[in-house]
Amino acid sequence: MMNTQDLDKKYVLPTYARADVEFVSGKNATLKDVNGKKYIDFTSGIGVCSVGHANELLNTAITEQISNITHISNLYNIAPQAKAAQKIVETSGYDMQCFFGNSGAEANEGALKIARKWGERDGKIKRYKVITLKQSFHGRTITTVKATGQEAMHNYFGPFPDGFVYADDMNHVESLIDDHTCAVMIELVQGEGGVQPQDKDEVKALAKMLKEKGVLLIVDEVQTGIYRTGEFLASNLYEIEPDIITLAKGLGGGVPIGVVMTNLKGVMGAGDHGSTFGGNYLSSSAACTVIDILNDYKKSGDLEINTLLFNKAVEKIYKKYTNLFTQKVGIGMMCGLRVKDADTLAAIINSARENGVMVLRAGRNTLRFLPPLTITKEEIDEGFKSLDNALSSI
Amino acid sequence: MMNTQDLDKKYVLPTYARADVEFVSGKNATLKDVNGKKYIDFTSGIGVCSVGHANELLNTAITEQISNITHISNLYNIAPQAKAAQKIVETSGYDMQCFFGNSGAEANEGALKIARKWGERDGKIKRYKVITLKQSFHGRTITTVKATGQEAMHNYFGPFPDGFVYADDMNHVESLIDDHTCAVMIELVQGEGGVQPQDKDEVKALAKMLKEKGVLLIVDEVQTGIYRTGEFLASNLYEIEPDIITLAKGLGGGVPIGVVMTNLKGVMGAGDHGSTFGGNYLSSSAACTVIDILNDYKKSGDLEINTLLFNKAVEKIYKKYTNLFTQKVGIGMMCGLRVKDADTLAAIINSARENGVMVLRAGRNTLRFLPPLTITKEEIDEGFKSLDNALSSI
Repeated sequence: MMNTQDLDKKYVLPTYARADVEFVSGKNATLKDVNGKKYIDFTSGIGVCSVGHANELLNTAITEQISNITHISNLYNIAPQAKAAQKIVETSGYDMQCFFGNSGAEANEGALKIARKWGERDGKIKRYKVITLKQSFHGRTITTVKATGQEAMHNYFGPFPDGFVYADDMNHVESLIDDHTCAVMIELVQGEGGVQPQDKDEVKALAKMLKEKGVLLIVDEVQTGIYRTGEFLASNLYEIEPDIITLAKGLGGGVPIGVVMTNLKGVMGAGDHGSTFGGNYLSSSAACTVIDILNDYKKSGDLEINTLLFNKAVEKIYKKYTNLFTQKVGIGMMCGLRVKDADTLAAIINSARENGVMVLRAGRNTLRFLPPLTITKEEIDEGFKSLDNALSSI
Repeated sequence: MMNTQDLDKKYVLPTYARADVEFVSGKNATLKDVNGKKYIDFTSGIGVCSVGHANELLNTAITEQISNITHISNLYNIAPQAKAAQKIVETSGYDMQCFFGNSGAEANEGALKIARKWGERDGKIKRYKVITLKQSFHGRTITTVKATGQEAMHNYFGPFPDGFVYADDMNHVESLIDDHTCAVMIELVQGEGGVQPQDKDEVKALAKMLKEKGVLLIVDEVQTGIYRTGEFLASNLYEIEPDIITLAKGLGGGVPIGVVMTNLKGVMGAGDHGSTFGGNYLSSSAACTVIDILNDYKKSGDLEINTLLFNKAVEKIYKKYTNLFTQKVGIGMMCGLRVKDADTLAAIINSARENGVMVLRAGRNTLRFLPPLTITKEEIDEGFKSLDNALSSI
């Protein structure tokens, strides 16, 4: 029998530069590989395993749900989908409605569709242009690749759809708005772009300016949503009221799901959008349980305590290795350290893995931390001890 | 507490015209609603629940997998993903490699990306045009909406990407090919378009002509794949060798998954495409088990026996109600009856539901049947008895 790596090389398209590690089991923020080696997971599958690996409450909910029903078409009522929508909307505090898809890219496609349909109906002139930020990341479909403000990604797959305009930064947005602009789409913390938070005052000013001009604000919370920055949504933390918000990664705790939510309740009608899998019993049950777990975790105060612990540990590493790091960035359980150059960053990630702690890369040469939100003090301590060992050998 | 329908109206965007029924459990092709009423399911969640509801082998595999690990990033090796790719490729008989996403739309996005990157690299002129068929359906992202050959869907969400050309039928394709054409994308049985199979000789002739002209053939098997037409892929049944094939619905047995597979192994490199959830432990374990179950089911001969039984029952209804039906269409467990008009079709679907059997609508006024592949003789008998009752009252 071939091993996984050989099978992968033979049967899977080579779109990933995979690290040579194969996990077989996990428990909260601790992973075990095929050789029995233990790792502390500061990646959570890129922010997906928000309630940790093999969370018992989540797994019990999934097992119970699939013993009854996993999937049925959206042509019929789906109780857990309606409940998940209620939980998302009520926890967010926004007067919105949800549409369920299967990924962040699908959530963002939904956001763009809503914004453009609104833009076509709302005024005398058809409004379709969407302003996004440089260094943003919005997905891998042909349209969300084009929405992504990174020129290097706009190759090969065109013709891309027109109508995307890129702002250098928040202050550049206003000057790009014209009669055809329907929306501005931003991440409040750019994840792939280097764990780069926007300035709160600038975001609030942007939101106010857009409201005055009658242009929609779309916030891509695919990575920042579901308590990643400390509040249920980063939009809550930034104290803004977006028109459209997208969610995905942490929402299903590992079950594929994407959501677009909006206060524009009258824009999309029957048949305007759809998904076969979206919001099925499996994924929406998972989302309900993840939200319940994290609402309790937030209320208990433990999220805040562990977030502080985690950030203190990042700070300590940052101050100790001034030869490697230039800046600490991020918010809450979405943080990072800017590394002096790309080679050093690659060396750190490899050395960390060898030393039993998993960390991520992000843009702007950033060492990125996205631990499970439920990571324990013990796991934080052990992970940073391993990281310290790794860094001392760089 | 609000009931599901009220919750849904309050918190979910109104993109679905949902029938007033709420299922709470299922077993193979039998569903039970919130009032305890029993239904035979001839829809399988639009072809998704290929191995029936609450399949024990599938649920055991899922429960076992998530007790270890549900999700980790594609930056690392994922054993069930590599195994699922191997099973898909080996069962198909094609020398291909797979990329894993989360839906049929994402699979088709992947297909278009591969075709266009190939088209840009392959010749002196950039080739990017994709020919699709009228009445086709390829998804709900902005690009796959445009790839869908239905003008009514090309509203509101533009600018759509250029480069899609629509052929009236198979014989119209050749005349549309020009120096910029990179691919032709077809469904072998148009599902949404009315369960309309292509003619086998025409498909073989098209495949041969495309090979001679150096244009790619993409087969969208989102609905036809995974034994829906009797063979693992409809491409097997039609005896063609496409360059790119997409899969989704039936592959995960209810777990969201999409796959694009291709013989173009050298086109996509590291970073050219990606997915956070795609091919994770949960969805690819589910896919492995679904394929194992259905490979055994096919080998046992039971798939063929039950497909014959099902089609005989459709035939019987067709011959009995000549006042309602004009044509029997489809292949294998993907079949339909053309109904004389849209109002009658709507009446049939409602009456069927009231009588305890779930059926679907498709284009061209088609009453559509997509039962679980594992539907039993008893369930077929009971379902058609209920359908007979329903039809006799129309």
